Amino acid sequence: MQLRPGAEMNPDHALLVDLYELTMAAAYFEHRIDCRATFDLFVRHLPAQRAYLVAAGLNAALGYLENLRFSDADVQFLRTHPIFRTVSPAFFDYLREFRFHGDVQAVEEGTLVFAEEPLLQVSAPVLEAQIVETYLLSVIHFETLVASKAARVVHAAKGRPVLEFGTRRAHGPEAGVRAARAACVGGCAATSNVLAGALYNLPLAGTAAHSWTQVFPSERRSFEALLETFPNSAILLIDTYDVLAGAEIAATLEKRVPGVRLDSGDLLEKSRLVREILDRHGQRDTKIVASGDLNEYKIEELLAGGAPIDSFGVGTDLVTSRDVPALNVVYKLVETETGGVAEPKTKFSEDKVYWPGRKQVFRFSEGGQYHHDLIARAAEEHPKASALLQPVMREGRRMAPALTVEEIRQRTLANLACLPEAYHALHQAPAFPVEKSPALEQLLEEIRVKHFGVEKASHLGGGS
Amino acid sequence: MQLRPGAEMNPDHALLVDLYELTMAAAYFEHRIDCRATFDLFVRHLPAQRAYLVAAGLNAALGYLENLRFSDADVQFLRTHPIFRTVSPAFFDYLREFRFHGDVQAVEEGTLVFAEEPLLQVSAPVLEAQIVETYLLSVIHFETLVASKAARVVHAAKGRPVLEFGTRRAHGPEAGVRAARAACVGGCAATSNVLAGALYNLPLAGTAAHSWTQVFPSERRSFEALLETFPNSAILLIDTYDVLAGAEIAATLEKRVPGVRLDSGDLLEKSRLVREILDRHGQRDTKIVASGDLNEYKIEELLAGGAPIDSFGVGTDLVTSRDVPALNVVYKLVETETGGVAEPKTKFSEDKVYWPGRKQVFRFSEGGQYHHDLIARAAEEHPKASALLQPVMREGRRMAPALTVEEIRQRTLANLACLPEAYHALHQAPAFPVEKSPALEQLLEEIRVKHFGVEKASHLGGGS
Repeated sequence: MQLRPGAEMNPDHALLVDLYELTMAAAYFEHRIDCRATFDLFVRHLPAQRAYLVAAGLNAALGYLENLRFSDADVQFLRTHPIFRTVSPAFFDYLREFRFHGDVQAVEEGTLVFAEEPLLQVSAPVLEAQIVETYLLSVIHFETLVASKAARVVHAAKGRPVLEFGTRRAHGPEAGVRAARAACVGGCAATSNVLAGALYNLPLAGTAAHSWTQVFPSERRSFEALLETFPNSAILLIDTYDVLAGAEIAATLEKRVPGVRLDSGDLLEKSRLVREILDRHGQRDTKIVASGDLNEYKIEELLAGGAPIDSFGVGTDLVTSRDVPALNVVYKLVETETGGVAEPKTKFSEDKVYWPGRKQVFRFSEGGQYHHDLIARAAEEHPKASALLQPVMREGRRMAPALTVEEIRQRTLANLACLPEAYHALHQAPAFPVEKSPALEQLLEEIRVKHFGVEKASHLGGGS
Repeated sequence: MQLRPGAEMNPDHALLVDLYELTMAAAYFEHRIDCRATFDLFVRHLPAQRAYLVAAGLNAALGYLENLRFSDADVQFLRTHPIFRTVSPAFFDYLREFRFHGDVQAVEEGTLVFAEEPLLQVSAPVLEAQIVETYLLSVIHFETLVASKAARVVHAAKGRPVLEFGTRRAHGPEAGVRAARAACVGGCAATSNVLAGALYNLPLAGTAAHSWTQVFPSERRSFEALLETFPNSAILLIDTYDVLAGAEIAATLEKRVPGVRLDSGDLLEKSRLVREILDRHGQRDTKIVASGDLNEYKIEELLAGGAPIDSFGVGTDLVTSRDVPALNVVYKLVETETGGVAEPKTKFSEDKVYWPGRKQVFRFSEGGQYHHDLIARAAEEHPKASALLQPVMREGRRMAPALTVEEIRQRTLANLACLPEAYHALHQAPAFPVEKSPALEQLLEEIRVKHFGVEKASHLGGGS
């Protein structure tokens, strides 16, 4: 059973914006500026520890755009706030009727993306396109961040299931739910987050806490009791007092033990000793789950050392993307359109120049493996490549029902299988080649010349 | 106006738990184990970059405990889930009637805390105390994480206002709201998150985006337009094309310019040049706001270099606590009580031993400055010290109305003023002295001997 199918975590969202989205909206309104605007949402640079990203969060983004409304209380709050006292009442009437009527192009969730490639392109009346900036960045950023981390952890586990156990250390309860979804998008096999399981139909996994064992007069009795209630799924946590003694107790129970969990100490050494104890007592089918501040680097090391671990519970490092807790994700105006005339736009702030105009990302493959990408103007045609940006919303309505997370996960795994092995390296992976089309380069140069004149333009160098 | 006073972001929370909380609850229920249990919520170690923590998240935690209910749909989801098929129907009837009836002791939000000091102590029937673990950890951890980071940033800014601008890079929308609150608890002057402002009555701040300037035919016209709508509060973003040219335009507008924002390049050099341009044109009251991947280290450096910056917009590093994106926060059973007989509990997993029994944290001061802390057994008396843990909830009901964030912020600032200067150092601050009472040491030793016998106990070393 899935709880409220299609539901999303959307905490009370119309005011969930940076103030400047609403002050700019008010000023656009007052100046009757109603051009159509196109924004690209992309990650500016990839950090050294990420050779690729796994796109995620689109479902939440589209759900937000479809349902965005300002309640009467929201409007009243803004109308009476001192910051808005110079704004005319008509703006608040506008907010009361506000709907998002824009078009969205996006890469599918589970798509691998690289620096400067738009994950999302929003075209809408400028007020609408501006107001949705904060929320879109927030959900796309966070789910992409965690899905990308998950893909690395899953790769390191070499086919052994990775269980997402991080809710308690995620950045608040909602982050725990989103992280669980994103982890499964990135390839994790299950989550401990029950709400995420219920909302997104994800497999659930869990073991027991130390407190369970502590409450009982003896460790043996605590194990027996858990097995009595959950004979098929109980995973016994055996390190409350002494992990080897705990393993001996688990191995000599009368009942079959589905699994044991190790959560402390040297997991390589302890997993070997525990496996030995279990095997010696004929408990060869008992699985060993390891946990305790794991990440892709530690898992790689454990498996390189031959640790007999069957699955990994990964928490904090996964849900906070601890080595890279944020990506340089931005939402930039690339085109305005007034009376049918499109005008490509960019900015030239130091180190922050971006490619103007509507774009398409073309992915070229050879022999079933990704070869290189080309960021190009939207109208270009490259028939040998796949075009990653596809229409997903028209005039504020989704163009297709949401995929299930399991469908997305399968696509992620298929996409990852197309990425050549070199880019999967956890350390010092090379940069996947992403080229810009000559037409795009030329457009940037034209805008530069138009803005600064020829002389200044020549000093500014490349546009990336 | 405050939107829904006292409201909290509590996304649909009864299922927002790790699966094992519910499987353990089911197994306790099936085995009729209904002792009272006391859990400590604390941070095991402080990372090198944090000499102290600022406690936060208590309001959300208490709101959760007061309102926790399983809906019919929640119960139906669990009852029909394969994991629970071996659990008797009576457990689901129990969940339907579930309420939290426990007692909570806690340190006030804004209190400075150190490693191993309980932020929260929950005493309740064991099922109830167990089920609430995940959510309590989640909200206390994240708000404490951000409040602690904020205090460092605010310290580095030496009295200049710090504005929280991070929602877009927080870990999802709700994290943005919680981070805004926590940032203000930690001393920030304002936030850009409108919903957080509305929920918690926080001062709002904002400027403008590059897109605002790009939409207009000229930068000058974009500045004028923003000033027409917001004559008293507009902050002009002057680096869309060229920051010094932008400053010249801002400085020569007919209207008074409340402020300008720099968001790229060398902020030290650029702020000086911009100040010079503004002053040269008589715009001495125009404030300079700086932003762009700032944190406490960069702010310290900018101010050490004499940057004429009036306030700092801090985003990603603050709301993700980028250098320390998670704390080692745990929730550990320390006592069970059956038929009025209390039994202190602990576990002995490698490197993860903790002090058993109910505790109190005593803070000793000298000359108005914090001198040292003492973690002691709850019944100890140390009349010269303040006892940090105080009752905040009895039988599931709050004992006092929530403080406002502004009240908490004032307490935080007062507490920080009592922390000797050495512990404020951003780099290599010494560890604040936290002692354990002899009675607490003795209790741990007694449990160790009882569990392992005398010989083994002597090998285990200290308990921290």
